[in-house]
Amino acid sequence: MTPQEPPPDDAAPEGEAPARSPAEQLHLPLIEGDWEATVALAARLHPAELADALERLDDHDREMLFQTVPNEVLGEALYYVEPHFRGQLVQGLPAPQLGEMLEGVADDVATDFVQDMEPDTAGAVLDSLDEDRRHAIERLLTHPEDTAGGRMTGQLVTVRPEFTVARTLELLRQLQPDASQPFYLYVIDDRRRLCGVVNLRNLITSPGETLVSSVMGTELISVRADADQEEAARLLRQYRLLALPVVDSHDRLLGTVTSDDVLDVIEEEATEDMFRMVGVSEEEDLRDVWRSVRYRLPWLSVNLLTALAAGYVVSLFQDTLATVVVLTAFLPVIAGHGGNAGIQTLTVVVRSLALGRVSIRDASLLIKHEVVTGTIMGLVSGSLVALVALMWQGDAWLGLVVGVALLANVVIGAVFGTLIPLALDRLGQDPALSGGIWLTTTTDVLGFLFYLGTATLMIGYLD
Amino acid sequence: MTPQEPPPDDAAPEGEAPARSPAEQLHLPLIEGDWEATVALAARLHPAELADALERLDDHDREMLFQTVPNEVLGEALYYVEPHFRGQLVQGLPAPQLGEMLEGVADDVATDFVQDMEPDTAGAVLDSLDEDRRHAIERLLTHPEDTAGGRMTGQLVTVRPEFTVARTLELLRQLQPDASQPFYLYVIDDRRRLCGVVNLRNLITSPGETLVSSVMGTELISVRADADQEEAARLLRQYRLLALPVVDSHDRLLGTVTSDDVLDVIEEEATEDMFRMVGVSEEEDLRDVWRSVRYRLPWLSVNLLTALAAGYVVSLFQDTLATVVVLTAFLPVIAGHGGNAGIQTLTVVVRSLALGRVSIRDASLLIKHEVVTGTIMGLVSGSLVALVALMWQGDAWLGLVVGVALLANVVIGAVFGTLIPLALDRLGQDPALSGGIWLTTTTDVLGFLFYLGTATLMIGYLD
Repeated sequence: MTPQEPPPDDAAPEGEAPARSPAEQLHLPLIEGDWEATVALAARLHPAELADALERLDDHDREMLFQTVPNEVLGEALYYVEPHFRGQLVQGLPAPQLGEMLEGVADDVATDFVQDMEPDTAGAVLDSLDEDRRHAIERLLTHPEDTAGGRMTGQLVTVRPEFTVARTLELLRQLQPDASQPFYLYVIDDRRRLCGVVNLRNLITSPGETLVSSVMGTELISVRADADQEEAARLLRQYRLLALPVVDSHDRLLGTVTSDDVLDVIEEEATEDMFRMVGVSEEEDLRDVWRSVRYRLPWLSVNLLTALAAGYVVSLFQDTLATVVVLTAFLPVIAGHGGNAGIQTLTVVVRSLALGRVSIRDASLLIKHEVVTGTIMGLVSGSLVALVALMWQGDAWLGLVVGVALLANVVIGAVFGTLIPLALDRLGQDPALSGGIWLTTTTDVLGFLFYLGTATLMIGYLD
Repeated sequence: MTPQEPPPDDAAPEGEAPARSPAEQLHLPLIEGDWEATVALAARLHPAELADALERLDDHDREMLFQTVPNEVLGEALYYVEPHFRGQLVQGLPAPQLGEMLEGVADDVATDFVQDMEPDTAGAVLDSLDEDRRHAIERLLTHPEDTAGGRMTGQLVTVRPEFTVARTLELLRQLQPDASQPFYLYVIDDRRRLCGVVNLRNLITSPGETLVSSVMGTELISVRADADQEEAARLLRQYRLLALPVVDSHDRLLGTVTSDDVLDVIEEEATEDMFRMVGVSEEEDLRDVWRSVRYRLPWLSVNLLTALAAGYVVSLFQDTLATVVVLTAFLPVIAGHGGNAGIQTLTVVVRSLALGRVSIRDASLLIKHEVVTGTIMGLVSGSLVALVALMWQGDAWLGLVVGVALLANVVIGAVFGTLIPLALDRLGQDPALSGGIWLTTTTDVLGFLFYLGTATLMIGYLD
């Protein structure tokens, strides 16, 4: 965000001027060193807005903010910071301050922050917390970040089936559960195994002497702690739940994942898919060129090698190209068109796999659909480009060679656009992983081989 | 949650066989015409699983299912059907059956279905509903589908600030609000303006004589009904809410959008971005080739024209290429590399705009970041390819021409990868819209012009 001079308050020359973002509002007092105004403004903002400002301010302003605003106010904001930004944000802060800031944060979010700290800092921060809280976070830390267990909160209210509604309500009044928790109570048996779920509404609308066992739902959708976070997201979405219980391998209740946590997962996974297909990283930061170079260059370098392979194929046909120079004009058409048709297929397949709309079992259906679609589109584009070649160069044989090569390369794109992500998936890799490189390499190399090979065979007919 | 009877124990004939999907389980009784088994199985499935089966079955099986399974069972499943699939699913069903099926569905979901019907069918279905329900749906129908208003449900419980907690709980018991509603009660003044929000937990944990006005939260985050659905998703995510009140231009409460609705929005928008960048449609169906052709062919045709433009540029330099044929071998390298570097930039910018991480005001920061990143990567790749050209062809001048052209095209890709989505955004278009075509056209045309132009100028030095 480029810092802009905010309009002076007393002038307000523009009348309906667009509202300034929290980061913009904070910038002026921060550069002027007006701590009092900074602290007052930070306290007035919604914690989510302060979080937004923390994400957008430049390093200097952010550092000043961390030094002036009270830790409990900062702590409230931490809950709202974007997950992918958490690691960066707390880097370099002293452990005692981090400890104080994390005191008021829900334990799943606190765990997320601790996970992103250097091991030494993480240890010091954990030691500074009170014992119950440290244990809660340490338990959550045992689950890898991208699993259902890593996304869950362990703060939940459990009851027993033999409780009455009145006793349960009394329990709730005593516990005063914190507001970030879901609105379900989980019912467990004497071995902590999940056996039912009650929502607060059922509780309120039932007579006090009713037993929990008769108001609880027993059709339980739950997820194993070691399941991928995407699986948790998929279940929450498919069953339209606000919270999903997380259990261990013995069906014992460990915590819950809520649908607001999953909003992040869904956005992250979609971003990751998009970014992986083209070799960029979610971790990129607009203010850090070297980080971007580090993430993007390896992919571009592989791409360079594969492009050179395509170039090598072209060089094999130098004699043909020297004889019929006009063939060169259609090289970008053949390569580009096959690549683009393939990228359409690749994108559809990658996304369909990610959303669980198709699985590896649907491979033959997928391939058939893409090949037929590709053939039809190839016939149309091939005819068009043949016509262009004929009218432009007045050479029907050239038209035929170019048209058939275009058809062939669109079909090649469709076949490999399907096979590459399915193969990556079967190999246990992310289907999105650099699919773009392998695909365009294939369409370039095979497309040129086919086009220039055919042209060489037909060289006698081409002017 | 709809309580259902658990599956009978005898229904597990397969032992440890991999679990078959609901669609697979239903397929056999359906093709065998075993209606009894079909109906029994459909009733045993969770409605979300029946919905999944409806989405996956082929047309014949689905039709049979609609004819055999009772409408109220089908109706429960409709709630769980993927939004993008709703239109297709109910196509061709008779209005009276649709009316019966929609009876048990939450009004926002019912509205979604009605929106996707042919106008005649929609009218007949609405007429078959009881009056209150018809009015509720008609009110929701006035909001376009992709706005906050189009995503909201109007079923909510409102109270007044002067109510006591006891009176509010009594009201809840009388109303027995339906289970798909959020867990918040909204507080409105005498003109229906939203003035506070109470969550059920606060209510339960407060003494009965407390006034609603003293337990309600007044820091209200709400969204205007005519705001884009993405804005609603952004607010729910930023403020980590489970439900967001929707108001009209006079701040009057109309309904709420819940975070489970928004899971769909976020997935849809991400898919849309990915698909639009390559010219495919979210509406594609694996079983319908013509639909895919219809959506993809226009984009591929535009792409063909722009590829021909690049080919035309190449043809302008035929004399140069005929003189130094080896130049052709580097054509795919220059074009491919510039295009790929540009696609990296384009993807980062499109996604950052969609997630609200950058705005049009950050344009100069973005461009600077991408140009510097592109220049560094171009210097590395340019040097590498120059070295390859030198070693392969033993021609330092060729290396220089190819290396500089590669650098230039990577920078061209970075600049246009930033400018194209920003320009589309400023023009009020979706930044993802076919960004891929315009970008690769630019890198192809400008890249070839630069490469072959330089080569022509330097022709005396090239062997």
